[in-house]
Amino acid sequence: QETVCIFGTGDFGRSLGLKMLHCGYSVVFGSRNPQMSSQMPNGAEVLSYSEAARKSDIIIIAIHRDHYNFFIELTEVLHEKILVDVSNNLKINQYPESNAEYLAQLVPGAHVVKAFNTISAWALQSGALDASRQVFVCGNDIKAKQRVMDIVRTLGLTPLDQGSLVAAKEIENYPLQLFPMWRFPFYLSAALCIFFFFYSIIRDIIYPYVNKKEDNTFRLAISIPNRVFPITALVLLALVYLPGVLSAILQLYRGTKYRRFPDWLDHWMLCRKQLGLVALGFAFLHVIYTLVIPIRYYVRWRLRNITATQVIDKKDDPFITSTAWLSDSYVSLGILGFFLFLLLGITSLPSVSNMVNWREFRFVQSKLGYLTLILCTAHTLVYGGKRFLSPAALRWYLPSAYILALIIPCTVLVIKFILIMPCIDKTLTRIRQGWE
Amino acid sequence: QETVCIFGTGDFGRSLGLKMLHCGYSVVFGSRNPQMSSQMPNGAEVLSYSEAARKSDIIIIAIHRDHYNFFIELTEVLHEKILVDVSNNLKINQYPESNAEYLAQLVPGAHVVKAFNTISAWALQSGALDASRQVFVCGNDIKAKQRVMDIVRTLGLTPLDQGSLVAAKEIENYPLQLFPMWRFPFYLSAALCIFFFFYSIIRDIIYPYVNKKEDNTFRLAISIPNRVFPITALVLLALVYLPGVLSAILQLYRGTKYRRFPDWLDHWMLCRKQLGLVALGFAFLHVIYTLVIPIRYYVRWRLRNITATQVIDKKDDPFITSTAWLSDSYVSLGILGFFLFLLLGITSLPSVSNMVNWREFRFVQSKLGYLTLILCTAHTLVYGGKRFLSPAALRWYLPSAYILALIIPCTVLVIKFILIMPCIDKTLTRIRQGWE
Amino acid sequence: QETVCIFGTGDFGRSLGLKMLHCGYSVVFGSRNPQMSSQMPNGAEVLSYSEAARKSDIIIIAIHRDHYNFFIELTEVLHEKILVDVSNNLKINQYPESNAEYLAQLVPGAHVVKAFNTISAWALQSGALDASRQVFVCGNDIKAKQRVMDIVRTLGLTPLDQGSLVAAKEIENYPLQLFPMWRFPFYLSAALCIFFFFYSIIRDIIYPYVNKKEDNTFRLAISIPNRVFPITALVLLALVYLPGVLSAILQLYRGTKYRRFPDWLDHWMLCRKQLGLVALGFAFLHVIYTLVIPIRYYVRWRLRNITATQVIDKKDDPFITSTAWLSDSYVSLGILGFFLFLLLGITSLPSVSNMVNWREFRFVQSKLGYLTLILCTAHTLVYGGKRFLSPAALRWYLPSAYILALIIPCTVLVIKFILIMPCIDKTLTRIRQGWE
Ligand SMILES: Cc1cc2nc3c(=O)[nH]c(=O)nc-3n(C[C@H](O)[C@H](O)[C@H](O)COP(=O)(O)OP(=O)(O)OC[C@H]3O[C@@H](n4cnc5c(N)ncnc54)[C@H](O)[C@@H]3O)c2cc1C
Ligand SMILES: Cc1cc2nc3c(=O)[nH]c(=O)nc-3n(C[C@H](O)[C@H](O)[C@H](O)COP(=O)(O)OP(=O)(O)OC[C@H]3O[C@@H](n4cnc5c(N)ncnc54)[C@H](O)[C@@H]3O)c2cc1C
Ligand SMILES: Cc1cc2nc3c(=O)[nH]c(=O)nc-3n(C[C@H](O)[C@H](O)[C@H](O)COP(=O)(O)OP(=O)(O)OC[C@H]3O[C@@H](n4cnc5c(N)ncnc54)[C@H](O)[C@@H]3O)c2cc1C
Ligand SMILES: NC(=O)c1ccc[n+]([C@@H]2O[C@H](COP(=O)([O-])OP(=O)(O)OC[C@H]3O[C@@H](n4cnc5c(N)ncnc54)[C@H](OP(=O)(O)O)[C@@H]3O)[C@@H](O)[C@H]2O)c1
Ligand SMILES: NC(=O)c1ccc[n+]([C@@H]2O[C@H](COP(=O)([O-])OP(=O)(O)OC[C@H]3O[C@@H](n4cnc5c(N)ncnc54)[C@H](OP(=O)(O)O)[C@@H]3O)[C@@H](O)[C@H]2O)c1
Ligand SMILES: NC(=O)c1ccc[n+]([C@@H]2O[C@H](COP(=O)([O-])OP(=O)(O)OC[C@H]3O[C@@H](n4cnc5c(N)ncnc54)[C@H](OP(=O)(O)O)[C@@H]3O)[C@@H](O)[C@H]2O)c1
Ligand SMILES: CCCCCCCCCCCCCCCC(=O)OC[C@H](COP(=O)(O)O)OC(=O)CCCCCCCCCCCCCCC
Ligand SMILES: CCCCCCCCCCCCCCCC(=O)OC[C@H](COP(=O)(O)O)OC(=O)CCCCCCCCCCCCCCC
Ligand SMILES: CCCCCCCCCCCCCCCC(=O)OC[C@H](COP(=O)(O)O)OC(=O)CCCCCCCCCCCCCCC
Ligand code: HEM
Ligand code: HEM
Ligand code: HEM
Repeated sequence: QETVCIFGTGDFGRSLGLKMLHCGYSVVFGSRNPQMSSQMPNGAEVLSYSEAARKSDIIIIAIHRDHYNFFIELTEVLHEKILVDVSNNLKINQYPESNAEYLAQLVPGAHVVKAFNTISAWALQSGALDASRQVFVCGNDIKAKQRVMDIVRTLGLTPLDQGSLVAAKEIENYPLQLFPMWRFPFYLSAALCIFFFFYSIIRDIIYPYVNKKEDNTFRLAISIPNRVFPITALVLLALVYLPGVLSAILQLYRGTKYRRFPDWLDHWMLCRKQLGLVALGFAFLHVIYTLVIPIRYYVRWRLRNITATQVIDKKDDPFITSTAWLSDSYVSLGILGFFLFLLLGITSLPSVSNMVNWREFRFVQSKLGYLTLILCTAHTLVYGGKRFLSPAALRWYLPSAYILALIIPCTVLVIKFILIMPCIDKTLTRIRQGWE
Repeated sequence: QETVCIFGTGDFGRSLGLKMLHCGYSVVFGSRNPQMSSQMPNGAEVLSYSEAARKSDIIIIAIHRDHYNFFIELTEVLHEKILVDVSNNLKINQYPESNAEYLAQLVPGAHVVKAFNTISAWALQSGALDASRQVFVCGNDIKAKQRVMDIVRTLGLTPLDQGSLVAAKEIENYPLQLFPMWRFPFYLSAALCIFFFFYSIIRDIIYPYVNKKEDNTFRLAISIPNRVFPITALVLLALVYLPGVLSAILQLYRGTKYRRFPDWLDHWMLCRKQLGLVALGFAFLHVIYTLVIPIRYYVRWRLRNITATQVIDKKDDPFITSTAWLSDSYVSLGILGFFLFLLLGITSLPSVSNMVNWREFRFVQSKLGYLTLILCTAHTLVYGGKRFLSPAALRWYLPSAYILALIIPCTVLVIKFILIMPCIDKTLTRIRQGWE
Repeated sequence: QETVCIFGTGDFGRSLGLKMLHCGYSVVFGSRNPQMSSQMPNGAEVLSYSEAARKSDIIIIAIHRDHYNFFIELTEVLHEKILVDVSNNLKINQYPESNAEYLAQLVPGAHVVKAFNTISAWALQSGALDASRQVFVCGNDIKAKQRVMDIVRTLGLTPLDQGSLVAAKEIENYPLQLFPMWRFPFYLSAALCIFFFFYSIIRDIIYPYVNKKEDNTFRLAISIPNRVFPITALVLLALVYLPGVLSAILQLYRGTKYRRFPDWLDHWMLCRKQLGLVALGFAFLHVIYTLVIPIRYYVRWRLRNITATQVIDKKDDPFITSTAWLSDSYVSLGILGFFLFLLLGITSLPSVSNMVNWREFRFVQSKLGYLTLILCTAHTLVYGGKRFLSPAALRWYLPSAYILALIIPCTVLVIKFILIMPCIDKTLTRIRQGWE
């Protein structure tokens, strides 16, 4: 039975100690007041810091960084010991150096390993380890790190080696982050939504009100969202594939792939997955908003009225095959596009993407991705149909919103089309040749 | 090449032996009748039990517990050997002690490790290791456990250390369980469904039959389910968030978080995930049942008739903006609620929840979870709209079903609202302060 | 700090070296022209091949197989070293022996380990390790393999031990494959689609055109797909469960489960998952195509016209309860079938199937799977309803497509029903008795 020492009898120390006892370790706590400590797990010993340290060569420091100063007195006892720093801060980049590096400075003779900071005491207690079974580990001494990773594994958690102690800063920031890669896609889509929202309000609510005194405000609930959401989805989808063609142009221009892209392009390329998933979310909303159309009061009312007028006026209502064709094909294109979109989403699930090889992943994401873009763009183009670019559709010189929405997708598709022409494609492949 | 010994040439022994041979081990079988054993994997040796045991220091016991008694004669040969118990029972808690502990009693000098019992022989044979690549391992000797876990890893399976041999009981019960955490949510939802089913039958089928001699039985196929399912979903969703507020009240009352919750509350809190997913299932059914409304024969027939009556009676059918508003907004609220609901479901997928940190997981589950509850409750409230609590809606003094359904959600939301008021929230945070 | 040597300063060597430096290794490159190498990662040394080899006992060979001949001169320096072969070929089975085995022949004194070939240089560079964090490792020397697997883990990747060097061939083929298990389901479903597509065209487009000169081509966009897709889904679903009953019959006939199934049956059984998922995809398309029905121009136009005709002709339109029953119940059956179908899909997600035990997985896949098949078959049967087998539905002696579609599902269900009758079931269980 291995003995592990834990400094600090607070919430985290206690929870971790209990878990370790369950997993077969023998645990010794180090505390300022060994006698005072109440509610300690059964079977654990509580000693003073220096006594406890002597019992084991691996010591977990479950104490807040602010109280680390007392370590200076313990440097001798801690010589050659493995110190596991589990501490977190309250804010990102609160201190100039990471807590673990600070600890390493205080106790130069010890091997400091950063670990466990992503695990919550409450999760350890309640067993609700849904999120983050992952324990990021870093440290300069490979043996020490290995020892800690063995403990992590024994506790049923997943250790992830992050390299040397320099990585501690990043590891300490990790639990303080809230979806960092989703931030840009989120703000971008919010901006797009707001723009197209007001654009649609002007065209669909204010314009009829000013011109015909119609009260169309009820459109705010479904019709306008069902204009804004698909447009946002389409633009975001195009923006997923735009950086790819931009970087290709850049590489063609530079003639090498070994110069780094500008920072904005780099970041953009790294958050394409998130952009794509947000686009999928909007597309999903569009689909549901579309499918509820026939159960809306307004739609049923209009249907009744049109039929009534037709009967009363004895108007003829001939069946126009071309309209049927157009109407059916844009819907069909949309359905197929959405299906492929979902497939892209499913292959983004970490467990699925883990099972496919690189070629398969790129086949789905790149080939099927472009096919999705083509289908969705075609869906919108055919939806426009005959009204497309017709001046009658202008209101206050503003074209329909979907026409604006088509600009970026069409641009991306045209450039891509140029890029895959044999001559250019060959040059590009040569530049990236190292790649398989 | 490491040599591993397997006792028992039955189905499991053979399958495991074959797999081990493929992974580069050399395998020796121990059997009662070494000569009789047929269809052994190529390259494996079959010897008597004691001879086989001498060939390796690690022995896998692929024999049913009932036949363990012959081990008493082998105690000497097995001294200091690692014995891997793979056995399962037919019923949960069939014997007072676990099979592995029983084996350890029989052969006191050996290091008994429990492992492999969750792997099926058929899966090993057919390669269809879809379920349970996870091998739970426990044992008192850490070195022996480590050896076994190395073998598990080499076979391409995932070892999970469960601590000392005491855990064997739980490990042996594991493959006999059928969704233990889903049981309570399942029965609860069944009870809710049945109650609301009969409640709706009374109001929607018996009442019209008794009062107007209308035959509404066809409503059993779609209309009634589409009343029962959303109501069940809403109640279950509220029940997901009820234990949270209950435990908060309890902690406030006790002034500490270090006293355990009563058992029922504890269990309830641990199966919130399952409750939530079952709720999602019902919500999904509600959505599909709603979307098929317009293709139903009954709905089309009614639409035709209303229009016909309107034309024939030359009734005017004015457009009522407030109705359009109400109708569109309750649908829109439902859609947004369902979207967030799905997001909760997606983040429950083990691979996704594994990728997010604790703060992110709680942000989605707790913050967005409450938002989901608010949206779904609002959806139902607005659906009720003007009829809400109107006496005309009573049938035999029974209110509409959705009014009953709203009781728990509204209660949860009101209590939560009180709990997040600054003064109370501060006390609560202090009580849980250890937590980050 | 461990030192690792990398031969070859190309794309892959450089990317891997950089990653290793980040993870705390010290890296030495071996190159033909140590002076010429530009853009090497900071902190790495570049030496000649033989000098570099002396610095470390583990050498990663990031060179194409075609250039391996120079190793002959290095045999002495490489004696007892661990050589990691990372190479890929351009085509499956390009060479008679695998690259790793070729290397082992060239340098007989070294321990060759195959690894890293599934990781793309571009992914290492850009950090986009979405696909394939999995590193397949094989080799004859267990210690050498262990060393390499430790490195893999330290880089944050997942090593998977595949056994001895014989497995190298398979590992080298892996990144060249494009969904091998999906190929059969894909071709099969394509064939089914095409057949039913033309069948439906004949019945629904050519027949009305020839007989009544109706132009029904617009049906190609939605109506025909919505006939072809559900039929394909149903047939595929039945084909998922057909091999199970076939193999049961075979085992009953042979009286043993220890003889291998014929190859075609084996392959069929192994790609049931893929078949099922493709079926789910088609079912999903069917559902969406069905839900858009009411927003189609053609449907709205017909609805208007029927109503108008009804009013003008003053026809009575009585409500037929039995039609309402039939219409509602087939839709309801479809919805429930689709719901269970999705559940099967969700439990196929690798991360979910990993969390359930074998009994639970089989409960969902086998029990709920058959329930799905029953519901979907019943859905189609009830949809047929009164028209079922009515001669009036024949066109040019061709029955409706869904009648053809019902043949396989009904057959499977009937055989399964026979197989689960107690007497037969008992024999079958005895044959498979080893199984739990
Ligand atoms: C619903 C949805 C889900 C998505 N999920 C994911 C996801 O899970 N993961 C993900 O990564 N993306 C995801 N995406 C985004 C997108 O599908 C992928 O990033 C896709 O691979 C982009 O394809 P591409 O052909 O434009 O880009 P790429 O094929 O990546 O190529 C674009 C550029 O990358 C550079 N490049 C590529 N390969 C090399 C090389 N070998 N050497 C040098 N330079 C190279 C070049 O500069 C090239 O111009 C998702 C998108 C959607 C819509
Ligand atoms: C579709 C769906 C999917 C779901 N999936 C999951 C899932 O995968 N995993 C999951 O866990 N839940 C899941 N849930 C359930 C639910 O969303 C979560 O449990 C959610 O976190 C509950 O939020 P809460 O704010 O009520 O509870 P909590 O935030 O857990 O708090 C409630 C109570 O917990 C106790 N508590 C919380 N933190 C502390 C602390 N640090 N110290 C002491 N006591 C504390 C307190 O007693 C508190 O009153 C799911 C729900 C749905 C609808
Ligand atoms: C949407 C969807 C998703 C699916 N996902 C998956 C998936 O992820 N993984 C998957 O495997 N399948 C998947 N399937 C396919 C299918 O559901 C399963 O293969 C299912 O287990 C088949 O059930 P069965 O009862 O026909 O076959 P089985 O229960 O496998 O039995 C059929 C035959 O297998 C043999 N057999 C079974 N057990 C034994 C034994 N112990 N000893 C000897 N012989 C035995 C017998 O010959 C028997 O006749 C999926 C299907 C669908 C529709
Ligand atoms: N709680 C979590 O969920 C969680 C998660 C990850 C990481 N962490 C990290 O774990 C560490 C401990 O967190 P915690 O939640 O356990 O905190 P806590 O409950 O406040 O406990 C801190 C402990 O530190 C000890 N200590 C030593 N010198 C101290 C001093 N001068 N003042 C106060 N306490 C002193 C005390 O133990 P004695 O009285 O026995 O000396 C005290 O119990 C922190 O670094 C935190 O960032 C916590
Ligand atoms: N099959 C599975 O899917 C599976 C999965 C997990 C765990 N297990 C466990 O593995 C063990 C073996 O299961 P199995 O399916 O292989 O069973 P099995 O086919 O019945 O084989 C049992 C073997 O035990 C040996 N044995 C020794 N003494 C015996 C005795 N007195 N009577 C009968 N057999 C005796 C026999 O081998 P010799 O004739 O060579 O002596 C026999 O082949 C069990 O403990 C089981 O719980 C099985
Ligand atoms: N790139 C990938 O994504 C990837 C992925 C997995 C596996 N691999 C494998 O990694 C290996 C290297 O791939 P790579 O993409 O790095 O290839 P590369 O860019 O063409 O580099 C190959 C390197 O091999 C060295 N070399 C030695 N003798 C040579 C000779 N006679 N002719 C040409 N080069 C010679 C050269 O380095 P010096 O000039 O320093 O001698 C050259 O830089 C290949 O086996 C490949 O299959 C690559
Ligand atoms: C009918 C289908 C409706 C689908 C609606 C999909 C909306 C998708 C919106 C995006 C959701 C992202 C969740 C983010 C959680 C997160 O932050 O997750 C964070 C993690 C890690 O993020 P980082 O890469 O930034 O670290 O992200 C993921 O792992 C993303 C996984 C996304 C999975 C998307 C799955 C799409 C669903 C498709 C499956 C279903 C098909 C279904 C059919 C019936
Ligand atoms: C349009 C979307 C329709 C979605 C319908 C969802 C119904 C969900 C019903 C719950 C399913 C639970 C499966 C149980 C299997 C099991 O027992 O699984 C058992 C495991 C482990 O359970 P324990 O925690 O009890 O050990 O549970 C899980 O891992 C649960 C994972 C659940 C994942 C739910 C995913 C919801 C789907 C949302 C994704 C899709 C978005 C899609 C878009 C298009
Ligand atoms: C409304 C829901 C719509 C669902 C549409 C589902 C279409 C499914 C089509 C199959 C997709 C397969 C992807 C193949 C990727 C691949 O090759 O993946 C390859 C891997 C590995 O394949 P091998 O086993 O062949 O190695 O396969 C998988 O891991 C398969 C995982 C499939 C997961 C299917 C999930 C179904 C979705 C249900 C979840 C959602 C519920 C949602 C609700 C709202
Ligand atoms: C199931 C799949 C889909 C269906 C049934 C569908 C259907 C429709 C319908 C009926 C409209 C017209 C809406 C109206 O009259 O106001 C529409 C518009 C539109 N759709 Fe889709 N669609 C689908 C998928 C998609 C997808 C995946 C995208 C792209 C990401 C998309 C983008 C658009 C756009 C941009 C418009 C124009 C919005 C406007 O200006 O009104 N659709 N779709
Ligand atoms: C896409 C999303 C949704 C849509 C389009 C939608 C639509 C509807 C409609 C049209 C009704 C009226 C049904 C009728 O007339 O019989 C309804 C009722 C209801 N919905 Fe939703 N809904 C959605 C999501 C949800 C969700 C997520 C919940 C909650 C969990 C929910 C709970 C309810 C409840 C409780 C009722 C009242 C049932 C009754 O008594 O008839 N809905 N919804
Ligand atoms: C939400 C679930 C479902 C709904 C609402 C639904 C609805 C329908 C409807 C309305 C039809 C008649 C189509 C027409 O008039 O052309 C139909 C036909 C059919 N459905 Fe479904 N269905 C569902 C799920 C399924 C599933 C899961 C399957 C099987 C895999 C399936 C198989 C079929 C078949 C084979 C037909 C006959 C196609 C034909 O010959 O026209 N359905 N379904």
